[in-house]
Amino acid sequence: MAQNIYDTAEFFEGYSRLPRSRHGLDGAPEWPAIRALLPDLRGRRVVDLGCGFGWFARWAAEQGAAHVVGIDLSERMIERARRETNDARVAYRIADLETLGLPAAAYDFAYSSLTFHYLEDFGRLVRTLHQALVPGARFVFTIEHPIYMAPANPGWSRADDGRMSWPVDGYSVEGRRVTDWLAKGVVKYHRTIGTTLNTLLAAGFALRGVVEFAPTADQITGDPRLAPEIERPMILIVSTER
Amino acid sequence: MAQNIYDTAEFFEGYSRLPRSRHGLDGAPEWPAIRALLPDLRGRRVVDLGCGFGWFARWAAEQGAAHVVGIDLSERMIERARRETNDARVAYRIADLETLGLPAAAYDFAYSSLTFHYLEDFGRLVRTLHQALVPGARFVFTIEHPIYMAPANPGWSRADDGRMSWPVDGYSVEGRRVTDWLAKGVVKYHRTIGTTLNTLLAAGFALRGVVEFAPTADQITGDPRLAPEIERPMILIVSTER
Repeated sequence: MAQNIYDTAEFFEGYSRLPRSRHGLDGAPEWPAIRALLPDLRGRRVVDLGCGFGWFARWAAEQGAAHVVGIDLSERMIERARRETNDARVAYRIADLETLGLPAAAYDFAYSSLTFHYLEDFGRLVRTLHQALVPGARFVFTIEHPIYMAPANPGWSRADDGRMSWPVDGYSVEGRRVTDWLAKGVVKYHRTIGTTLNTLLAAGFALRGVVEFAPTADQITGDPRLAPEIERPMILIVSTER
Repeated sequence: MAQNIYDTAEFFEGYSRLPRSRHGLDGAPEWPAIRALLPDLRGRRVVDLGCGFGWFARWAAEQGAAHVVGIDLSERMIERARRETNDARVAYRIADLETLGLPAAAYDFAYSSLTFHYLEDFGRLVRTLHQALVPGARFVFTIEHPIYMAPANPGWSRADDGRMSWPVDGYSVEGRRVTDWLAKGVVKYHRTIGTTLNTLLAAGFALRGVVEFAPTADQITGDPRLAPEIERPMILIVSTER
């Protein structure tokens, strides 16, 4: 099964303090770029893979979704999601995405934010999801960008002239990466962009859009700490159609 | 118009000495990965954008293509291509891909190797090509990988432990890059993977495969100088369908 780092006290406390945990979707700089790729959710049956505190699930219901299922491995996150949700259209389920089963043709839209890089077997989940979506359904997800994830010791390097760069190594060596972020020993799985896209195509999804997220000039003006993010992409956003 | 660096004496002499210029397709380590994505060419009408010395054009004819047109900006390269081609099915044309026109529905397959990163306006060419291909036609091309191209001063960095890394900067800042390779002041245009793929999708192409080329273990055994290439991808290979 996938590592359940979110349920460790250290990680959970750190994660709960992040802007995206405190302020929800608007606390994530990539949210406007994701939102631009979303279909009209009115009347749709939605599944959110790695739903965390349920921000997206509640937002989807507010947009008029008929039913939203948020799925996450973390009992603590689902517990808080349930506590903060007061909408009969939204349900939560604790499950490991590595072994998840989903009913056939049960959903009209699938979403996932910053979750799949924790999965060792992306292909299995993609095939499970494909049979769970109706033809024409959209599937939009984000992952940590492979350029961000690939290095053995990911981090910035500063040149003599002050310019920041992101040294990349191991890009073509896929698999396990162990890093310290919020807690020690967080396990992630690096895949190239090519592998991610080919896995989707092999399962029968058509590609509709790829965004390598970088903050806009306005976002950098609003939060100058985002400035280095234009040097290397932080998040990969992929839009597909079943 | 595009910079015609290939017709400068210094660049042309240097380029002519590269393994891929002396040994043709088999002199390029990415060729087996490209070949795996190619359709059956028997009876097909083929266009090669940026055909250089004509290695691919001649190979396509040998595979049974009905007709192959190789197009390149470089008069010196086309001159050598014509000199080395003795096949009535292969024709060459000197033209700038920035302003190229192509007849409608005239081709069954399009190919391009390491050319499009010289173009400022990739979208125009893709739209021109889309109308020149018949429905169902494949279009396979390679470009320098954007991770390779993005940095202001692309090059390796060696850590204290000897490990090579490729410092990335400016990834999200698209546009002109001026580097010295074989000659001084070679002008290329960096685009993110997202922009490249979205440009193809917007023109009506469907994505069929993406390969971020890295040498295989066998290739590295055969030529140990290739070893660092697994640290960052050098070439992006894209397979699409009209």
